[in-house]
Amino acid sequence: MTDIQSIKAFAADIDGIFTNGQVLALPDGDLLRQFDSKDVFAVRTATDNGYPFGIITGGYSKSLYYRCTSMGIPDEDIHQMSKNKLPVFLQFCESHGLKPSEVVYFGDDIPDLETVKAAGIGVVPHDAVEQLRKAADFVSPYNGGHLCLRHFIEMILTTQERWIFRPDKPWKGFPPDPIKGSI
Amino acid sequence: MTDIQSIKAFAADIDGIFTNGQVLALPDGDLLRQFDSKDVFAVRTATDNGYPFGIITGGYSKSLYYRCTSMGIPDEDIHQMSKNKLPVFLQFCESHGLKPSEVVYFGDDIPDLETVKAAGIGVVPHDAVEQLRKAADFVSPYNGGHLCLRHFIEMILTTQERWIFRPDKPWKGFPPDPIKGSI
Amino acid sequence: MTDIQSIKAFAADIDGIFTNGQVLALPDGDLLRQFDSKDVFAVRTATDNGYPFGIITGGYSKSLYYRCTSMGIPDEDIHQMSKNKLPVFLQFCESHGLKPSEVVYFGDDIPDLETVKAAGIGVVPHDAVEQLRKAADFVSPYNGGHLCLRHFIEMILTTQERWIFRPDKPWKGFPPDPIKGSI
Amino acid sequence: MTDIQSIKAFAADIDGIFTNGQVLALPDGDLLRQFDSKDVFAVRTATDNGYPFGIITGGYSKSLYYRCTSMGIPDEDIHQMSKNKLPVFLQFCESHGLKPSEVVYFGDDIPDLETVKAAGIGVVPHDAVEQLRKAADFVSPYNGGHLCLRHFIEMILTTQERWIFRPDKPWKGFPPDPIKGSI
Repeated sequence: MTDIQSIKAFAADIDGIFTNGQVLALPDGDLLRQFDSKDVFAVRTATDNGYPFGIITGGYSKSLYYRCTSMGIPDEDIHQMSKNKLPVFLQFCESHGLKPSEVVYFGDDIPDLETVKAAGIGVVPHDAVEQLRKAADFVSPYNGGHLCLRHFIEMILTTQERWIFRPDKPWKGFPPDPIKGSI
Repeated sequence: MTDIQSIKAFAADIDGIFTNGQVLALPDGDLLRQFDSKDVFAVRTATDNGYPFGIITGGYSKSLYYRCTSMGIPDEDIHQMSKNKLPVFLQFCESHGLKPSEVVYFGDDIPDLETVKAAGIGVVPHDAVEQLRKAADFVSPYNGGHLCLRHFIEMILTTQERWIFRPDKPWKGFPPDPIKGSI
Repeated sequence: MTDIQSIKAFAADIDGIFTNGQVLALPDGDLLRQFDSKDVFAVRTATDNGYPFGIITGGYSKSLYYRCTSMGIPDEDIHQMSKNKLPVFLQFCESHGLKPSEVVYFGDDIPDLETVKAAGIGVVPHDAVEQLRKAADFVSPYNGGHLCLRHFIEMILTTQERWIFRPDKPWKGFPPDPIKGSI
Repeated sequence: MTDIQSIKAFAADIDGIFTNGQVLALPDGDLLRQFDSKDVFAVRTATDNGYPFGIITGGYSKSLYYRCTSMGIPDEDIHQMSKNKLPVFLQFCESHGLKPSEVVYFGDDIPDLETVKAAGIGVVPHDAVEQLRKAADFVSPYNGGHLCLRHFIEMILTTQERWIFRPDKPWKGFPPDPIKGSI
């Protein structure tokens, strides 16, 4: 496990990390998810303060794309349909000129196992599956979809003195283009 | 903290106050929220009995607009995309000829901190973040999205003898125009 | 309180009875709700075995209409936009040739208070507001939206030897017309 | 009850098994459900490793069709509008050349009772109704919609040495056709 001061970026799975794992199935086969406002605040604060943030999910939905861009994550760091996550994670690190040991990864289930091991700090939510809990550097006291991201990101940024909220600077990418000007 | 008899109006954040903080992400980037019927009853009873009610949220969605108007809140008191909340709160007070000390504010996270401090009574739900719990005048026994609003509003209105339900008077703004006559 | 053998019909509020009180707010102002399959099974079993079932809700949505008809409830017994519930309840009883003392009513909040008192058996969920708990004949061990309806309806029908499931008889009104033949 | 090594296939109800029993009612009468990512992972791992998987539900929605096909379940094993489940279960077994004693069935409510009895192993979630708990071979420590499927399927496949995750092989049927290429 890397020490906290060395961390320079974050990457995370979606289902079971940003969410409690529940997906709402639509009639066209699309799957919708619920996100936690306190977790989203932490991710936005991270991207707003210059931390790269990668998304590596087996999921696939336009809804995930807009949810991620509206947290200040650029297109090239959003990776959907990633069943094989480790190569994607290593590519994310390389593209930002970082070593895997400088990056936190959040995962909760078997497809995340190798990436949790490879990351500088592998974090799993309290309700991760047993194999992930065993492999993790840090088992969060919080479940996926509610404060697991917030708790850990706030801790890292606070320690690095970069947990800074700027009331006057609009959140990057919010609202997303399709709904801009709709009210 | 102001005494209860001096309170003349309410203002509140949405995410984590009216809701448990969860937002459902749609394919067009819009975010939908769940509201509690018992909380909504309290807000309607407040507006029905003449209390101004302000909404100050960082969120942005047509769904929030209609949800608020159908609780009897006029357009000019609904403030979306408000990352910097304190000036909006002060403006809300001024527009109703009130001092901040005469207004209750409900908030749960860092963007609400200064407003919770500035309000006559700053209320936070039980599950507010630590900084907000420390700054609050009143920490609710209830979580955001379930009875935090109901409990406090009912207490104020009951004390002021204005917790009055009128079965024969239709709720203002309900149903909203787009669905009126749809069944 | 009426004895169980005298009960001939049921009536119920929607929010906080069929649901946990949460409503999902849509961009056009419509509100969607979640229903419990075990509760729905009980209501269908009641209508299938000949019990009138009335819906008396302050809500308003096409979604409620179809949800109710697909539980075997005829149009004339579905009453939306009913803020003043007692006259609607009395009218429901009269239209079925029943005395209020022969009908169970399920309610959870202030608009239900007079009807809970007027019904043969006034049932409130465990999480009803205090005034309703005090007025009720029966406080369910279950919360609204999860087993309050099932538990009480199953008890009545079992006692009356009409808790009968017919595997070969299709549920009345299901699927509703707009989605019939869609898969 | 069959011993674990003899199990060759699975079949399951939807509401209360894949979900917690809650259905979201839409304005056109359609009902949407939430699925658990960890449960879905288990079903996909089963179909990916060659186990037939049958769906036998009283529900009816295009959303169920796509949710099932995207877990690798072929059209002919998805049975909606099945109020009378036992004959459908027996037909599912026969079509795969299996005896009922070689198949696990997951059910939670009265329409599942006879099938839970007929299956090789009848599994019910912790929150199944009392009659089902009494009839079951195995009462899961987990509730429907959260880990009941995962726990039991993982146990069977692990015992049979077929709990195998293949990172490089895309999940069958995912994403479903209507949303393919949408991002």
